[in-house]
Amino acid sequence: MSNYGKAFALMRDAAQGPWRDYTRHTFVEGMKDGTLPRAAFLHYLRQDYVFLIHFSRAWALAVVKSETHSEMLTAVATVNALVAEEMQLHIGICEAAGISHEELFATPERAENLAYTRFVLEAGYSGDLLDLLAALTPCVMGYGEIGTRLASEATSEVYRDWINTYASDDYQGACKAVGELFDQALTRRIGEDFAASPRWDRLCQTFRTATELEVNFWQMGLTP
Amino acid sequence: MSNYGKAFALMRDAAQGPWRDYTRHTFVEGMKDGTLPRAAFLHYLRQDYVFLIHFSRAWALAVVKSETHSEMLTAVATVNALVAEEMQLHIGICEAAGISHEELFATPERAENLAYTRFVLEAGYSGDLLDLLAALTPCVMGYGEIGTRLASEATSEVYRDWINTYASDDYQGACKAVGELFDQALTRRIGEDFAASPRWDRLCQTFRTATELEVNFWQMGLTP
Amino acid sequence: MSNYGKAFALMRDAAQGPWRDYTRHTFVEGMKDGTLPRAAFLHYLRQDYVFLIHFSRAWALAVVKSETHSEMLTAVATVNALVAEEMQLHIGICEAAGISHEELFATPERAENLAYTRFVLEAGYSGDLLDLLAALTPCVMGYGEIGTRLASEATSEVYRDWINTYASDDYQGACKAVGELFDQALTRRIGEDFAASPRWDRLCQTFRTATELEVNFWQMGLTP
Amino acid sequence: MSNYGKAFALMRDAAQGPWRDYTRHTFVEGMKDGTLPRAAFLHYLRQDYVFLIHFSRAWALAVVKSETHSEMLTAVATVNALVAEEMQLHIGICEAAGISHEELFATPERAENLAYTRFVLEAGYSGDLLDLLAALTPCVMGYGEIGTRLASEATSEVYRDWINTYASDDYQGACKAVGELFDQALTRRIGEDFAASPRWDRLCQTFRTATELEVNFWQMGLTP
Repeated sequence: MSNYGKAFALMRDAAQGPWRDYTRHTFVEGMKDGTLPRAAFLHYLRQDYVFLIHFSRAWALAVVKSETHSEMLTAVATVNALVAEEMQLHIGICEAAGISHEELFATPERAENLAYTRFVLEAGYSGDLLDLLAALTPCVMGYGEIGTRLASEATSEVYRDWINTYASDDYQGACKAVGELFDQALTRRIGEDFAASPRWDRLCQTFRTATELEVNFWQMGLTP
Repeated sequence: MSNYGKAFALMRDAAQGPWRDYTRHTFVEGMKDGTLPRAAFLHYLRQDYVFLIHFSRAWALAVVKSETHSEMLTAVATVNALVAEEMQLHIGICEAAGISHEELFATPERAENLAYTRFVLEAGYSGDLLDLLAALTPCVMGYGEIGTRLASEATSEVYRDWINTYASDDYQGACKAVGELFDQALTRRIGEDFAASPRWDRLCQTFRTATELEVNFWQMGLTP
Repeated sequence: MSNYGKAFALMRDAAQGPWRDYTRHTFVEGMKDGTLPRAAFLHYLRQDYVFLIHFSRAWALAVVKSETHSEMLTAVATVNALVAEEMQLHIGICEAAGISHEELFATPERAENLAYTRFVLEAGYSGDLLDLLAALTPCVMGYGEIGTRLASEATSEVYRDWINTYASDDYQGACKAVGELFDQALTRRIGEDFAASPRWDRLCQTFRTATELEVNFWQMGLTP
Repeated sequence: MSNYGKAFALMRDAAQGPWRDYTRHTFVEGMKDGTLPRAAFLHYLRQDYVFLIHFSRAWALAVVKSETHSEMLTAVATVNALVAEEMQLHIGICEAAGISHEELFATPERAENLAYTRFVLEAGYSGDLLDLLAALTPCVMGYGEIGTRLASEATSEVYRDWINTYASDDYQGACKAVGELFDQALTRRIGEDFAASPRWDRLCQTFRTATELEVNFWQMGLTP
């Protein structure tokens, strides 16, 4: 079981159904056993690159919405990891498949993609850091869980690079750091007993909606 | 032909395909000839009520983003019209159909609905008044065009109330006011020759994306 | 004693010193006994007009940041009251003094003025509705208290119009509505026992800072 | 003469008076000849640390408001430089003077300080990247000009560390990068002939106001 903090564990449990649909989606299982068509994977990767542009912007918004130096540092580190590392992974795999950086950046954004990032950004703009983190964590942590599971369960080498990225110590460390940020940000704003706060249900709802948008994102990946 | 200002006419022409798909959608034609199932209409209306909550918030954001007294006044008037009048229409029709205001407010938001309003709000938060207006106008003006056309073409009385709302002098006046606001806001920020500005293509793209999200919204209406 | 709700009373008590400096400022006492120079008053009124433009934008942001229909309605009503009524008072008095609407709108904004409204707007953009309301209430409620007190204590008729505006049933009703909005918004987000929430101190600090910026605003009024 | 790009040169010329007051302020001249009292310097440094927290947040907002990968990269690099380097300088000098990091972070924010950062953040939130950059550049570039001038004109070693930071190749390189970002962001949004755009005057006004707020900041530095 992943260990990404207390708030994440509670929110995941409150969104059990969508969480399973997301982390065990056909697309994911297709990476596990190597049956996922290459065209679907590259289509997904291009959309995910566009996703990461806006997701990085959302993490930059977390810097803006920070109230302490420590909150700022974790959010800045995450922006750096996304812009400098994760986006590079996509550029590398795509270039190896003959898709140039220019083509990648110009990928037309699908509605399922746009829905997700705009939801996250708007949650952040309209709310405070907690609303934003509730919308950001399903992506960060879900990929962490999927990476860990597929690293041990994968029966094919086809998508090993992708799997290793998210199973890596670097990525798992980022998940833990985000989990700590979330727990501390919650404690600072609504107290240690998160679930007793009147805000808890709404935050869980934001987490659940983001999780459902992840499901739609994988589904889009299957329909290039 | 509608007369909602110069910028709108140019942007609509640049998004011709999606604009036709939006304003002549099966859902719309079903209101015209009365063949649209009542369940689909009520489902749409409930989603549209949730839509209007966020759309009103987006118009309030236009007040925040205003640079002149005149921009503020038009945006404030639109918020009032939405909150005080258009939302009342939905409450009224729904109550007549046995759906209480509480049920209406608690309608679970569909992904196609959420995608649209978050796109509009994020465009406004991240950009200036022009980016926001480019995302707001397809809904305002499209309903104006549909209302006018169906008022003369409708062959059934079933959806006459809905049609009359958007064909009314009040609503048509609002469309003209928004058209003037848009033209003046553009002139103030990028000059009278809109289409010559380097920003024009991006603004047209925002308008086009919002139009495509309207198509998805009608489509959702057909699948309760 | 004013009766503008529970949260306001608590926050005012926590900012006792600045609150006294604000509501009993030399400028205010000069309106009470009529010794305030006319030039200072007109200078203040012009700055206050510019202030109200941005303050109305901040209340429109409260609409954007609302989570319930009831929150939206109170915020919309306040925007209307500010834009349609309070700003008209300024336009009227200034016109009677030979200052045109154009001159009024073009008033160069003083640093003490700018500091205040940008602080309020930024608190709202970066935080949620509670952070925004904590920054908005000192102005709304303070003028309500000053109006009520001066209505009974004034020994001169010179500034009676100004006093009557803020002592009026309309304005006092608005203060009560804002007080209820604040109490309900707090209850919804951090529970009924406001002061027990970890956010309370920061919200009180925002209220206190806004109060200090009110003191600076009056001080500016004395130095045309 | 500094070489921080075309837009900066034009805006500085349009704000000549305030620019001179800012870059040749008594505080600055006191660092040049070493007559600035140590207490004033440390007081300024503590306020500047609080300033940098919010200024870093404003640069993070520039990441959020970016429309291209290149805009994002420059803005991310600037956030990193501010958070990782410039703030460290302050921590180091203050610690050497017996002021702990905790004390530093807890410095009560002066009104002149708050006015400036909230103005910058609000300009960014309400406008697009151009409005934000017009508010951000006076600080970045002004310190660059002051550093360069004092490096050659200083007649005392007392404030050599501070001077060297801003005269350094690193800092000067950052100024050039920001200058290029600004020129390219302007070209992308309002065309190469900046000054011909209807937005130019307003952008220059934002730059001028930020410059005036820099003058007030130095002035505050003289009054611990």
